[in-house]
Amino acid sequence: MTPWQIEIIGLVAAVLTTFAFVPQVLKIWRNKNAAGVSLTMYLVLFTGILLWLAYGILLDRLAIILANSVTACLQLIIIVLKLKHR
Amino acid sequence: MTPWQIEIIGLVAAVLTTFAFVPQVLKIWRNKNAAGVSLTMYLVLFTGILLWLAYGILLDRLAIILANSVTACLQLIIIVLKLKHR
Repeated sequence: MTPWQIEIIGLVAAVLTTFAFVPQVLKIWRNKNAAGVSLTMYLVLFTGILLWLAYGILLDRLAIILANSVTACLQLIIIVLKLKHR
Repeated sequence: MTPWQIEIIGLVAAVLTTFAFVPQVLKIWRNKNAAGVSLTMYLVLFTGILLWLAYGILLDRLAIILANSVTACLQLIIIVLKLKHR
C-alpha cells in the first residue's frame, strides 16, 4: 500500500470515530433521558480528547486538530445533556 | 516542548481515550440495562477503531496498535452487552 492509501484509511477512521457520537447526542436529546450513559466515561474521554487536541496543535497536524475539535464539541454536548437529564 | 514531551501527551491521551470505556462497561454490567446507550454510536465507533488498528498495523506503530486493540475489545463488550440488555 502507498503512504497515501494508508493516510486515506486513517482519515476514514477519523471521520467514523468523530461522527460516531452524533447518534448518542440525538438519542439523549430525543428521549430526554441519559440514565444509562456513563458520565465518568465521557469526562475521561473528553479529557483524553483535549490532550489529543493539544498533541495535534503541538505537532501542527490539521487532521488531528479538526477531528478532535469536533469530537470534543460532541462530547461536551453529551456531558451537558447527561447533567441535565440524569 | 521537546518531541519526547509531545509524545508523552499523546500517550496519556491514548491511555485516557482507551480506558474511558471501562466505566460504561461496568455501568451496563451492574445495571443489566443499556437502554440509554446508542448502539449506532458503538457500531460506527467500533468500525472506526478497527480502521485505526489497520492504520497502526500498516504504519507499524505499536502505540496505535495497542491502544486501538484494547479499545476495540472494550467496545465489543459494550456492543454485546447492549444487544443482551436492550
